[in-house]
Amino acid sequence: MVEAITWHGDHLELLDQRVLPFETTYIQCRSAQETADAIRNMVVRGAPAIGVTAAYGLVLALQQDPTPAAFEAACKVLAASRPTAINLFDAIDNTTSRLGNLADLQDPAAEAEHIAVAYHQDDLAKNKAIGRHGAGFLAGARSVLTHCNTGSLATSGWGTALGIIRQLHEEQRLTRVYADETRPFLQGARLTVWECQQDGLPVTLVTDGMGGHLMNNSMVDCVIVGADRIAANGDAANKIGTCMLAMAARYHNIPFIVAAPTTTIAPKTLTGKDIPIEERPHDEVSHVRGNPITAPDTAVFNPAFDVTPAELITAIVTEDGVFHPPYRFN
Amino acid sequence: MVEAITWHGDHLELLDQRVLPFETTYIQCRSAQETADAIRNMVVRGAPAIGVTAAYGLVLALQQDPTPAAFEAACKVLAASRPTAINLFDAIDNTTSRLGNLADLQDPAAEAEHIAVAYHQDDLAKNKAIGRHGAGFLAGARSVLTHCNTGSLATSGWGTALGIIRQLHEEQRLTRVYADETRPFLQGARLTVWECQQDGLPVTLVTDGMGGHLMNNSMVDCVIVGADRIAANGDAANKIGTCMLAMAARYHNIPFIVAAPTTTIAPKTLTGKDIPIEERPHDEVSHVRGNPITAPDTAVFNPAFDVTPAELITAIVTEDGVFHPPYRFN
Repeated sequence: MVEAITWHGDHLELLDQRVLPFETTYIQCRSAQETADAIRNMVVRGAPAIGVTAAYGLVLALQQDPTPAAFEAACKVLAASRPTAINLFDAIDNTTSRLGNLADLQDPAAEAEHIAVAYHQDDLAKNKAIGRHGAGFLAGARSVLTHCNTGSLATSGWGTALGIIRQLHEEQRLTRVYADETRPFLQGARLTVWECQQDGLPVTLVTDGMGGHLMNNSMVDCVIVGADRIAANGDAANKIGTCMLAMAARYHNIPFIVAAPTTTIAPKTLTGKDIPIEERPHDEVSHVRGNPITAPDTAVFNPAFDVTPAELITAIVTEDGVFHPPYRFN
Repeated sequence: MVEAITWHGDHLELLDQRVLPFETTYIQCRSAQETADAIRNMVVRGAPAIGVTAAYGLVLALQQDPTPAAFEAACKVLAASRPTAINLFDAIDNTTSRLGNLADLQDPAAEAEHIAVAYHQDDLAKNKAIGRHGAGFLAGARSVLTHCNTGSLATSGWGTALGIIRQLHEEQRLTRVYADETRPFLQGARLTVWECQQDGLPVTLVTDGMGGHLMNNSMVDCVIVGADRIAANGDAANKIGTCMLAMAARYHNIPFIVAAPTTTIAPKTLTGKDIPIEERPHDEVSHVRGNPITAPDTAVFNPAFDVTPAELITAIVTEDGVFHPPYRFN
């Protein structure tokens, strides 16, 4: 399985997901600032992967300057890199709370490194548990529709939504996964398809508007997606294009599943209305791979995420098990 | 307003919609075969525009060879160019039935020309009526979401769904039209945005997955789309990506309007299940403007249309007025 995030002791190596599957290029980060830039520019993306990356970014910060002031500045730089994914803040909180008072530590960077490596391994274990819980719940699932990329590239490995799909494949129950191309950034067309091909999953690429037609014709029997932040009431922010799949699944009465580690749940975010939705640059919509698809100076709206109302989510699958509405995460 | 279809007496000139808005190029058709090729290759598209184009294609056929055998062959070539749009068959039926027995006519080509020009003018008049009926019905509409291109490029001029939106704009009621880019062929990004800009309508481009987010945030108060074929029970085939908008609109309880001339209604097509759905070449999905967006040899599904169940359609607006479910077109 492909490794999107590799720690080398004095630097972090990230598989550049912006150019996959056309080029396999790695970016090296040697500071918190370089790590934050890589997150903002989407070298690495996917809520759990962003969390793990940020944890290593803090190690790099402490290696450069272990003073509390420098460390606090690094935390702020990393926290500002993407606003929606809660895992980013979870990773920063995890490191800062476990480190405690920096002045009390003999080697803060080494401590942070232990914390980051454990956080990384822990995310992988959570993915595997999510896969088992989800595949167990979806007794009838054979053909699955998914959106964006939630696989080994978006996590520490294995995946969340794609982790469940991988588990179905391992149990020889998966007949096909339909991957939404996921405009504007095309994570489905570029990353999910490639990941599935690498690992032998039967995958078919569709455009984001085809989900309704697949459901009308009984070509999929469930939808499985990831999440970037889940509010206390179960409202779930995920890649733009997700909530309409949930509305279509409800009309067709097929399961709509959100798969995410518990680190994605934000109990202090009471409802979906409290989730900040990042708006990204307009040329992501007006251009595809650098080429314009519309007239010059076209007005564009480019929210990166949407919120699926909790009542439309059949189940939220975490490493702790399968939850159903009404959700109450405290 | 832009002219997509211009008749020159001995040839048909079509604005090449495949290269808009980047190039303004015209294609000349001098035979039924060239006309059918232009329809198949989507030089011209949009159900009403395809019908008008086919009517002129029959004139060209009769100019070349007015024998019944040659004319019948030309009808078949044109009918085979696109399978879903019923207007194509309506235009061919209209010409053949009005012509009657070719042997009885002094100048079949001249007769066919009168019929085609009248068919063309009639479609424009129907568009204007659709616009008035639709705008009258949508008393509260200010901000509209639309899909694909249903404007002057897709019709004889003015438009069907975009005709209603133009009428709202003329009445100074339109605050904004959100145009889905409409993958895979990008008719929204390339054509609808350009048409709106030409005529001063306030337009914002979004990707096909953003409709749910727009509705979640009360940014649109209705959805207006066209149709390629409407069954007797009101089920409506339209560009892929349409039916999911209807499912989202139902969830949000906002009007979902289908606008089409009565020539789009096919009483002999009993329900949506009887509508043949064209599957188009896979490179339309795997590539954008000639550039790959996914790994080589990726499996692709590319249905060109989907069917919106009649029960999800708040109103079907034709030149004859506004219809509501349950629909019964005989």
